[in-house]
Order: sequence, then C-alpha cells, then structure tokens
Amino acid sequence: MKYIAILGLGVVGCGTADLFTENAQAIAARLGEEVSVKYALDVRDMPDSPYADKIVHDIKVILDDPEISVVAELIGGVNPALEYTRACMEAGKSVVTSNKELVATHGAELLALAKEKGVYYLFEASTGGAIPVIHPLATDLAGNTVRSISGILNGTTNYILTRMFRSGASFEAALTEAQQKGYAERNPAADIEGIDACRKICILAATATGTLVDPDSVHTEGITAVRQSDVQLANRMGYTVKLLGRFVRQTGGTFVMVAPFLLPKDSPLSGIEDVFNGVLVDCNYAGDVMFYGRGAGSHPTASAVAADVLSILRGDAQRYEWTAGDDTLSTDFRLFSCRHYLSLRGVEQSAVGVIWSEAEILPGEGDEIALITPSITEQEYEDDLKRLCASGAQLQAHIRVFD
Amino acid sequence: MKYIAILGLGVVGCGTADLFTENAQAIAARLGEEVSVKYALDVRDMPDSPYADKIVHDIKVILDDPEISVVAELIGGVNPALEYTRACMEAGKSVVTSNKELVATHGAELLALAKEKGVYYLFEASTGGAIPVIHPLATDLAGNTVRSISGILNGTTNYILTRMFRSGASFEAALTEAQQKGYAERNPAADIEGIDACRKICILAATATGTLVDPDSVHTEGITAVRQSDVQLANRMGYTVKLLGRFVRQTGGTFVMVAPFLLPKDSPLSGIEDVFNGVLVDCNYAGDVMFYGRGAGSHPTASAVAADVLSILRGDAQRYEWTAGDDTLSTDFRLFSCRHYLSLRGVEQSAVGVIWSEAEILPGEGDEIALITPSITEQEYEDDLKRLCASGAQLQAHIRVFD
Repeated sequence: MKYIAILGLGVVGCGTADLFTENAQAIAARLGEEVSVKYALDVRDMPDSPYADKIVHDIKVILDDPEISVVAELIGGVNPALEYTRACMEAGKSVVTSNKELVATHGAELLALAKEKGVYYLFEASTGGAIPVIHPLATDLAGNTVRSISGILNGTTNYILTRMFRSGASFEAALTEAQQKGYAERNPAADIEGIDACRKICILAATATGTLVDPDSVHTEGITAVRQSDVQLANRMGYTVKLLGRFVRQTGGTFVMVAPFLLPKDSPLSGIEDVFNGVLVDCNYAGDVMFYGRGAGSHPTASAVAADVLSILRGDAQRYEWTAGDDTLSTDFRLFSCRHYLSLRGVEQSAVGVIWSEAEILPGEGDEIALITPSITEQEYEDDLKRLCASGAQLQAHIRVFD
Repeated sequence: MKYIAILGLGVVGCGTADLFTENAQAIAARLGEEVSVKYALDVRDMPDSPYADKIVHDIKVILDDPEISVVAELIGGVNPALEYTRACMEAGKSVVTSNKELVATHGAELLALAKEKGVYYLFEASTGGAIPVIHPLATDLAGNTVRSISGILNGTTNYILTRMFRSGASFEAALTEAQQKGYAERNPAADIEGIDACRKICILAATATGTLVDPDSVHTEGITAVRQSDVQLANRMGYTVKLLGRFVRQTGGTFVMVAPFLLPKDSPLSGIEDVFNGVLVDCNYAGDVMFYGRGAGSHPTASAVAADVLSILRGDAQRYEWTAGDDTLSTDFRLFSCRHYLSLRGVEQSAVGVIWSEAEILPGEGDEIALITPSITEQEYEDDLKRLCASGAQLQAHIRVFD
C-alpha cells in the first residue's frame, strides 16, 4: 500500500480523493500496489465530507509521516502553498500540483529544490486540466524542436467567445451567462483579462524550452474589448475569435503572449468550443500536434493530478529543470510580426490604402472601415496606427490574425 | 555518446536518421549526452544515401556491438522483422518500432520477451504516426478507467472520405486522386478495407486494457461501400462520414471494431480532415480527451520513434505487459448496440415503420428510403433487415451512427 496526502480539500482536492477511491481497483491492478489518500489538509473541519476522517489541520502531521512519499498541493495561490511545497520537499516528499500561479511564478526555484532534495515537483494539472500536455511535450515530442505552441487555455473566455459566436450574445451577456452556469467567477478579472492563460502559456513555454519567463513581462490582453460585431464579421470572413496563449519562434525572435486572435476555420483549434481547451504544438519533425480536452473541473483536473502521482510511484517521473529570469526566451514584443484586423471610424478608405496598400478591406460595421493588414511588426502597427489617428481616425477594434 | 541502430533505411528509417542528425544539438542539450545513429541495416547498398557509411547488411554486426543499446525496427511486416526483433532483445537490446502489423500480431509475445531480458519493446510510432497517444494513454490517463477509444487511424481513407465530402468526388475518383498524390498505395486494400486501422485499434485497446485481441477476430469494414450520395445526405443531416477504429465498453460487453461511422459535426473527430489522424479517448475522470496530428510520413513517424528511443536512454520508459488471446476484451459483435443509417429500395415507408417505429426517416436518394434506426444490437439489426428484405427491400447502403 502506498499513501499520499492532499493539501486543500476544495473542488480539485475532493475530485482527487474521489478518483483514488472510485478507481482504486484499476489503479492497483496497473501499479501492482494499492494507493490510498491518508491525509487531507484543510483549515475547515468538513464533518459532512466523505473524507472527514482524513482531515488534518497541521501540515506537520504530513511532514512527519514517513509513509507519505507524495503530496498533492491543491490549495492554489502562492500562500501558503509555496511554504507548504517547500516544507514537503525539505522533508523528502515529492509534490504534484494544480497550482498554475505558483508554478508560473516560483517553478524554477521549486524545481531546483526538488532536484537538490532528490524528489519530484510535477504540475500536469496546472495547465489544460485533464489534457495530457506537459508530460507529452516533455517526453513524446522530445526529439523535436518546438517552433510554436498555441493554446486555448482558459475555459471561461472560450465559453464567452463561443456564445458570442454561436448565439450573437454581447460580451456582457455571455459573461453573465458564464457566471450563471458557474463557469466564471463573480470577479472574473483573472480569466477575462488573460492572466490565467498567461500563467499557463508561461508553463508550457518553460516545459518546451527550459526557460521560465516572468508572467508579468508577457504581453497579455484579455477579451473585454472583443465586440459582437467583430466576432460576426470574423465569422463571415472564415474566422473564429479565440483567446490564445502563444509561444512563437520567428526570425525576429522568440515571443510569449496572450491575446485574442482571428483563427482560420480550418485550424484544428478553431472548432474547440465552450469550456474545452486545446493546445496546438508545431514541431520541426512531428508537424502540428494537438491535445484537446476539459481544461478545468473537479474530476478532469484530478485525472492530471493522478497521472503525476502515479508516475512518481511507478518510478518514471520526469525531472524538469528551468532557468528563470532569462529574457532570451521573450524578445521585445515590438518585434513580433503578424497580420492585424482592425476597425476604424472617421477615416477614408483611400487614407488606409496609403498606409497599408496591401490591406484586405472588409465590409465594416455601420460607418466603420474594417481591414486586415499585411504581416507587420507590432512596432510598425503602432507607428502606422498613430499616423492614421493623427489624421482623424479612431480605432474601434483590433484583433491579431493567427497565421 | 549513445549509439543506436536502425533496421530498414526506407521512408521512416531515413526520417529517423534525419531527425537524429538535424536535431542532434537540441537532443544532446535535453538528454545531457549526444545520440548518434551508428548502423542502418538494409538489404540495399544505397551509395547515394547520406547514410551510406552507416549501412550494414548483416544483423550480427548490430547484435555483437555492445555500444548499441537501442535498435529501431523500421522494416515493417512480420518477416524478417520478428526474427530481428527477437534477436536484438535476446542480445540485451531494447527495440522500438513503427511496425503495427508485428505489434498487433506478436506484441504480447515480444513484450514478454522484453520483460524476460530486462529490455524494452516500445511502439509509439506504430499507431497515429507523430501523434503522442500510446504513451499518454499508458501514463497520463493511468488514473482513469477508459470507457472508449475512437480513432481516425488511417490517413488514406480519411483523405478519400474528405474528398468525397468536400468536392463531391465518387469513391473511385477520390481513391485515384489519393494514389496520384502518393497517399494511397497502388494496391490500396490494406487501407480501404480497414486492415491497417484494425491493427492500430487493437494496439490502442491493448494499451488501455492489457489485453491484445487477435486482429483477425475483429469486425472490420472498410470504406469501399460508402457512396457519394450517403456522404452528401449525411452532410445535410449534420454528420460527416469517418472510418473509425473503436474500442467500446457497453452494458452488453466490450467491443473492438473498425467500420465507417456517421459522426455528428460537433464531435471533435468530425473536423479531422485529409491525411490527419485523431484519437478520442473517453475516460471516467478526464472525460473526452483527443490527440491529433499527422498519422504517417517520414518525419512525423520519426518523431514518435525518437520519443521511444529517448525514453529508454533517459531511463523512464514504460514496461507494457499484454495478455493475448483472451477473448474477454472482445464480446461477440452481435451484442454491440448503436443506431444504424441505411438506405433501402423496393420498400414502402410504412413497412419500415412496422419494423422500426421510432426510426428517423431521411430524404433518400431517388427512389430510395433512407433512415436512421433507434439504437439496436447488431443481431437485432440483422434480424430486422432480413424481415424487410424478405418482403422485397434491397439494401443500398448501411453505415453505423457514432453516439
């Protein structure tokens, strides 16, 4: 019998306890040994929980128990998760986590500590929920150079954009619907402003490259400025609008970003709807590979937590090593090149043609002129836009185009 | 420096040699050690090959070289691949392979030999080309019970069905086009009759369950009977037609099969077009997870070969154990339940209504009556159809419906 401990008996913690209970027999058959949750650390008593008998309030109980070799940190946030994670590894225990904030901000330090202590720090559940993506990226695609990673990494925003696309709802109406269905928090800022997706693309890029960029340094846009009319125009032009976390190698440099993109409908990411997530990885030998599934939720996230726990117990876990603060991974965003969709008011089409002679002019909303620019750098886009605005143009919408 | 040997310098063999050459630096950085192809066994001399200096004709050179710990068997077919694989493992070398025929027919025996000899037998490249699917199924989804696996596993047939769907081509015209593009063999039987997909679904089902069914015992239908009119009718009804390899747990039993299916357009498999492959796995905790990518080709398959080689060199390879010939995995196909699309001639709609009162009647081609039955077993379908045919009905088309 192998014993594990869970820190945090919230939605993911309960799901993980459920999994090791419900699937106990199948797991024992595969591993050759039973796995049991011995402790669940929580500040609450939770007498009505099916796991009430496992609840402890003091991390020391877990740290001092030599039967516990793996701890699942499912608290979320930096404090006290960081302190507990360090303490567990100091005590010789491996830690697996769903905590994207902690991994994206302290991952390099915690991986170094794991190496020093001869234990593992794994985080499959931090990104993409149930979707196997961290481990396959590190192992199954290890023979490749990764050219780009593009992910629909946040279910809340994908649900909102899907409703705007499918039902013609406004952003505000779709957000309210997402909140009513429990897909969005009452304070949805971390989702709709792209902060959650930013943490996840930082983790994916670090897995592919070994370099963790500071999430605060990543160009991050949310979806609050995406208008219903832009989504419908995109639809008519053969595009969907998706919030993407992207890691891109270009001739101009290597970029990490989060922003809404117009996605051609023949892209495999384009059909990913509602709260589902998907990660498209472009590799120099494998070509395009995509991983798809439920990006959040109690049981899906538990599946990823269990995968990490079992890899440690089987003895085939990965040891990741990340360098933090190395800005070679993230070139100045002003050098990133792509096409840009924009919608302008107060300008003549001829004036747009002077700036972008090869722009594709679209049928704009009302008196707006909508267009897609040729591929230009962010710096060029900013400069061109300034010239147009100086002659009276007002920017109504701006969404980058995924190529 | 680690050395590997390649058996068979064909399309995949050359791609694998290319990968370890072109990506040498990235691989060395990740592994902490260089990996080099030392030998390429082939019956040909190939003086113009960039790997001419590595070519050997005698397997003994490889068997006797203690520097070789991993051999990539990329010959295909059972002979001489089986003999060489056994010899390599007897000599204490791990073997990785792209050989779906060998794995699907001799996998259990070869895995047992690998275990006995303390080496590995890995086959990521045998199924789904570049797509990471065997290893993620065995590791990342290991906390789950797999409820079903449904895969578009053959690029040739998916290309043909995509052309029939998109351009209105007949089966024959689409097959000719596939042959002209090099996607189909001059003798396309193994692809269009479902034999290739059958081997792959047997490998996937064995990975999920530990039981390898005999491919010859699996209900296998190809796409030769799929008519252009059926594909177009399906399209109008909100379906695509895809050749699926399926492993399904139902209340009636556990089934393995290959057949064309009507797939609702909101299924993530539905948008997989041309030569791309995709595998949808339904797990009791993760829910639906899908893996997508290039299912064949020199460089994509090499990516999967390299993944297996590197897992052995890193020391985190999986040890699979399969039982063969255990028919508990594959219940009598007559008990499998699903809905059925069929098109009939020489029968009145009222007569159909007597047999299947809840059938959905569709606008058939010309004087045909097309319909979708309720969910019934294969046995019930056969019996019902016999009654209709006894009263003069002639079956024009039959495709199962994916639910």
